[in-house]
Amino acid sequence: MELFILKGNRFLLPKRNPTLEKADMKEMLEKPLAVGKGPTAALTIERTYPPVERNAATFDPKVLQSLLDGVHVEIRNSVKHLITQPEFRYSDGNDMASYRKQVLAWTKRMAETGFGRIFMPRSIGGEENLPKFIAAFETLAFHDISLVIKLGVQFGLFAGSIQRLGTEYHQQKYLPDAAAATLMGCFAMTEIGHGSNVQGLETTAVYHRQSDSFLINSPNYSSGKNYIGNAAEDGRLAVVFAQLEVEGEKHGVHAFLVPIRGENGSPLPGVTIEDNGLKMGLNGVDNGRIWFHNVKVPRVEMLNRFAEVTTEGRYRSDIQNQGARFFTMIGTLVSGRISIAATANSATKSALTIAIRYAARRRQFGSPKGSQETLLLDYPAHQRKLCPLIAKVFAFDFALKHLIDLNEMVHSGNSRSLETLAAGLKAVITWNTTQTIQTCREACGGEGYLAVNRISALKADTDIYTTFEGDNTVLMQLVAKNLLSEFQDKLKEMRPAQMARFFIGKRLAAIAKGNPGFAFKIRENHLRDTDFQVAMFRFRESAVLFSAGQEFHRLIAKCQLDQYAAFAHMQRELLDLAHAHIERMILERFARIINTVQSQPLKLVLKRVCDLFALAQIESNKGWYLEHGALTGWKSKAVTRQVDKLCSEVRQEAVHLVDSFGIPDSCLGAPIAL
Amino acid sequence: MELFILKGNRFLLPKRNPTLEKADMKEMLEKPLAVGKGPTAALTIERTYPPVERNAATFDPKVLQSLLDGVHVEIRNSVKHLITQPEFRYSDGNDMASYRKQVLAWTKRMAETGFGRIFMPRSIGGEENLPKFIAAFETLAFHDISLVIKLGVQFGLFAGSIQRLGTEYHQQKYLPDAAAATLMGCFAMTEIGHGSNVQGLETTAVYHRQSDSFLINSPNYSSGKNYIGNAAEDGRLAVVFAQLEVEGEKHGVHAFLVPIRGENGSPLPGVTIEDNGLKMGLNGVDNGRIWFHNVKVPRVEMLNRFAEVTTEGRYRSDIQNQGARFFTMIGTLVSGRISIAATANSATKSALTIAIRYAARRRQFGSPKGSQETLLLDYPAHQRKLCPLIAKVFAFDFALKHLIDLNEMVHSGNSRSLETLAAGLKAVITWNTTQTIQTCREACGGEGYLAVNRISALKADTDIYTTFEGDNTVLMQLVAKNLLSEFQDKLKEMRPAQMARFFIGKRLAAIAKGNPGFAFKIRENHLRDTDFQVAMFRFRESAVLFSAGQEFHRLIAKCQLDQYAAFAHMQRELLDLAHAHIERMILERFARIINTVQSQPLKLVLKRVCDLFALAQIESNKGWYLEHGALTGWKSKAVTRQVDKLCSEVRQEAVHLVDSFGIPDSCLGAPIAL
Repeated sequence: MELFILKGNRFLLPKRNPTLEKADMKEMLEKPLAVGKGPTAALTIERTYPPVERNAATFDPKVLQSLLDGVHVEIRNSVKHLITQPEFRYSDGNDMASYRKQVLAWTKRMAETGFGRIFMPRSIGGEENLPKFIAAFETLAFHDISLVIKLGVQFGLFAGSIQRLGTEYHQQKYLPDAAAATLMGCFAMTEIGHGSNVQGLETTAVYHRQSDSFLINSPNYSSGKNYIGNAAEDGRLAVVFAQLEVEGEKHGVHAFLVPIRGENGSPLPGVTIEDNGLKMGLNGVDNGRIWFHNVKVPRVEMLNRFAEVTTEGRYRSDIQNQGARFFTMIGTLVSGRISIAATANSATKSALTIAIRYAARRRQFGSPKGSQETLLLDYPAHQRKLCPLIAKVFAFDFALKHLIDLNEMVHSGNSRSLETLAAGLKAVITWNTTQTIQTCREACGGEGYLAVNRISALKADTDIYTTFEGDNTVLMQLVAKNLLSEFQDKLKEMRPAQMARFFIGKRLAAIAKGNPGFAFKIRENHLRDTDFQVAMFRFRESAVLFSAGQEFHRLIAKCQLDQYAAFAHMQRELLDLAHAHIERMILERFARIINTVQSQPLKLVLKRVCDLFALAQIESNKGWYLEHGALTGWKSKAVTRQVDKLCSEVRQEAVHLVDSFGIPDSCLGAPIAL
Repeated sequence: MELFILKGNRFLLPKRNPTLEKADMKEMLEKPLAVGKGPTAALTIERTYPPVERNAATFDPKVLQSLLDGVHVEIRNSVKHLITQPEFRYSDGNDMASYRKQVLAWTKRMAETGFGRIFMPRSIGGEENLPKFIAAFETLAFHDISLVIKLGVQFGLFAGSIQRLGTEYHQQKYLPDAAAATLMGCFAMTEIGHGSNVQGLETTAVYHRQSDSFLINSPNYSSGKNYIGNAAEDGRLAVVFAQLEVEGEKHGVHAFLVPIRGENGSPLPGVTIEDNGLKMGLNGVDNGRIWFHNVKVPRVEMLNRFAEVTTEGRYRSDIQNQGARFFTMIGTLVSGRISIAATANSATKSALTIAIRYAARRRQFGSPKGSQETLLLDYPAHQRKLCPLIAKVFAFDFALKHLIDLNEMVHSGNSRSLETLAAGLKAVITWNTTQTIQTCREACGGEGYLAVNRISALKADTDIYTTFEGDNTVLMQLVAKNLLSEFQDKLKEMRPAQMARFFIGKRLAAIAKGNPGFAFKIRENHLRDTDFQVAMFRFRESAVLFSAGQEFHRLIAKCQLDQYAAFAHMQRELLDLAHAHIERMILERFARIINTVQSQPLKLVLKRVCDLFALAQIESNKGWYLEHGALTGWKSKAVTRQVDKLCSEVRQEAVHLVDSFGIPDSCLGAPIAL
């Protein structure tokens, strides 16, 4: 009698109605409910849900969807086609074990369709098309997130690292099977003792001349590889990151291909594997821990694109500096971060679609004069909760597209500005995912808490996003450090007087550009002027950068701190700087996208959404702006009123805006949203 | 080999090590791990975790614990004794069904110990001691939250409503069995269509003179009782809230005792029950939906303390106004809200204890010069995340104690100031629970995501707290409306000139009290002056109240809105007002508690914690203070620096502060925290 969509942490519901096809949903929702059991039972009650209110749209959601789909609409459509097939129906797996099996089966099915070959090298029959791969991945994230992560581990991390850190030999030998998911593998970097600080890994790989091979060892408990996807059950081969030692000399972290399981599925000699067990979410992924004891790996199985041990048993690398070498190798993680951010934004879209549709059908309280109660979506507090989140998800979508383009242009994968943007967007977007899904849960009240309405699975599955593939706080510090380094480099070229002019000029230029006396302007056309908004974002970024630069200089020069201590001391300022930078990048990109839109009605809607994004950000940073004289109290209050107004405007299009995400009903699942 | 503590959404782990006793934990943590399988296996690795860093405390955590335990230390200790017994060990229930069974068994065990009699009337052998009951409940919330909610449903809502809405007849007939948990019951208020707006319930109870009974009916799908604890499996009797109709006249919502299941556990004739199924958390509680079809209830089974149908078949109530009558009945929910807030704060304490202890043992990155990596707790960003949350949990604890005292003084249970404080604290505390547990999850990285470390269960189980027992947004509006009404009443007694003086006087008095020229004072002794802090909180409250009052007047008088529309229009201002009021109450209470503390070292520590609470709140509202001229940019930045400093000071005592919560290790569970 009930419809169960079992996602995330969801086991053990009665095996009825495990399917989710539209016709079934309709039947479920409208199915009459026999009231009364026994002799007095007579009445039959229709399960009636009020309709989702859909007022006339001022724009065509399909046109907006095309803009979001971009050039890779074809792969998006074929992924949607696939995941809405019966075999991809959410199942009420009775337990973690069968959920894992289900996700493995889906993984293999995806591989059969060629998913795994999209970004692999042409030499092994791949398409070498990362943007297309990310588009597919992003679409897939409307469906089960465990599947997304399993595929990410298999194709992105495992196969991806063979492709990028290995050479022809490794690619030819392993990639065809990896792409077909017939060889399941692990990306064994993180250890129990080292997650963020991967340069501090403790696993060792010592080269032995006699056997021409490496001995891989886990010297202690904390050196065990931890949280490794595919490790607990399915993985046969692992890309293991370990400290390389050749002829008694240490060369830092390098990657090695290490078989971990035999054909029968048992761990190979010297390999100990432990299941990570139940997690908050993502229970379809088999994470585990791995320890190695004297595991012998032939010399050729070292991934040797950036460094190798020669046939003479000598260590050789074109990159002399150990740190630089390490970061070049790690640079290959950038595309992982992009993919994670993209799938996080998809999950955000799912939650928002559910919450907005529910708010457009659920009524509660109302005027004594009114004939019916008020729609949740008509309450200003509800609009305030959800509308700025709609604005963010669009802003992030456009920023991600820019990042993907940038990633294509920087083929080497280690450009600092690319790394900065990828790290920052990953952090900002995944934090927003957590915050948005939480808000959507609360906005749906008790309905949001029922597993059937899927928000709980979205929350649980994406919760780890803020701390994996780089802890967000650590990533944001990386962003800020990169900006500061760049800034120091610029400063070095200037004399002090020049420097002062440079900054004062930059500040004034930013703040007053075309806006004389702007601290007193509070009219709508001023507040909704993109130039004003961008100037505010730029001012914040440059002022925070300047003061962080000064502080860093003071700590080093006056307080005699070393660089590590100085950065540690100013973590709060660094986080501010990273936010200011990334937010400015996002706003500029959003504004640029609007300029490219042809359809006038769509342009108008997007401009409102962009205004809401910009002004809501200014509002949430109003303390800073007021402290720095860029807002007066008067103007700050005007910004707040303008955000209120924009929320009520965006509310008018809210249902159509979420429709434009194009999420298939069967993926969405939640009865409250259908 | 792994320790599984299965909480919340946690089913299906291998049945090994289901226990959690300290000795076992120790063994688990230190158990050697055999590395290597097969011929090369030789090494054995000790599972070594670095110790939790415990520097010398400046105060005795036991003394602080006594302060937190208060007068009801005895019941707290006996609850702790009970829940650390083997029978209360967390079990790895294989499924929702067995988890529910476990929680039912625990419920009955608690009842055997007399838990259910603590707050029941003396006439049935109870103690009539609500503060003691809440203390027991609060302590129990260190353990499984499903058990807490199940007991809350059974003793607080079901038995509690019979006690408070019923009379001697009902109490004698039902309470002994309810207290013994031999009669399990439901509190059937919420409906599918009406959760927050319970005055709009659709279930009907029509009095039939001939049979001298009521007919209970659910006229449609949306009138089905929803989310009713004990409904899906265990409940036999329900307190059903329905619209009463007598002789064709409607009298509003009243409560009736309706049997829903027979001895064999099947729904009685006319009763249809549906399982709510899997939820995000609290899966040990059997929530369900109930519809009624012509269910006959004898006249005497109406809970008739505030209104009744006489033997002559006439409706009679001492409270003439229907709305007033309804709110008097609903007033009995106040103690439910207090209990919820108290247990929420306990869950917050558990999460903080886990995160602080982890941060005091986990090292990551470090100075190239250092011999070891840096403790997470030594990073300013980490202190900034966790230390203000420690301050909040103490502030809330003291405010709750005040609320419980107030509740005792106001025996009728319908004082407006009590209702206001209970609603506001429930909202502020439960939002903080959600935010704190989320922050703790992220602060523990991947470890926080593993079910074994229990944060995931705390998160999932308490997530509903923000929207049940009154949706927080709705509650905060109730708070603000009460404040505004009070304000309007005061205004009515004044002439306009008086009014202006009143407010100007109030503002100035608040802002300048003993602090001439304070907008420029930025010295530490000023910022840490409680009078300054309280003045700031008061100023915010009175200024927001004044402007909300003006706005309300404007909307009614100038814009011709009715009261409902005016309140709906100014939701943002109402939320601000409610926050300002509740936060001021909390700070004043904290300050007062510090004055009562005898131990000088403890006083110093609590003062720092209170300063952090106060200044972190001022910092998070700095935008408002700057807008209203109560902070200059200069002073605002000084507040931020002072918060930084206080975080680093509170960090020194952080481990001892969480030790003082006195959470038994077996309840805490998380290996990363032991």
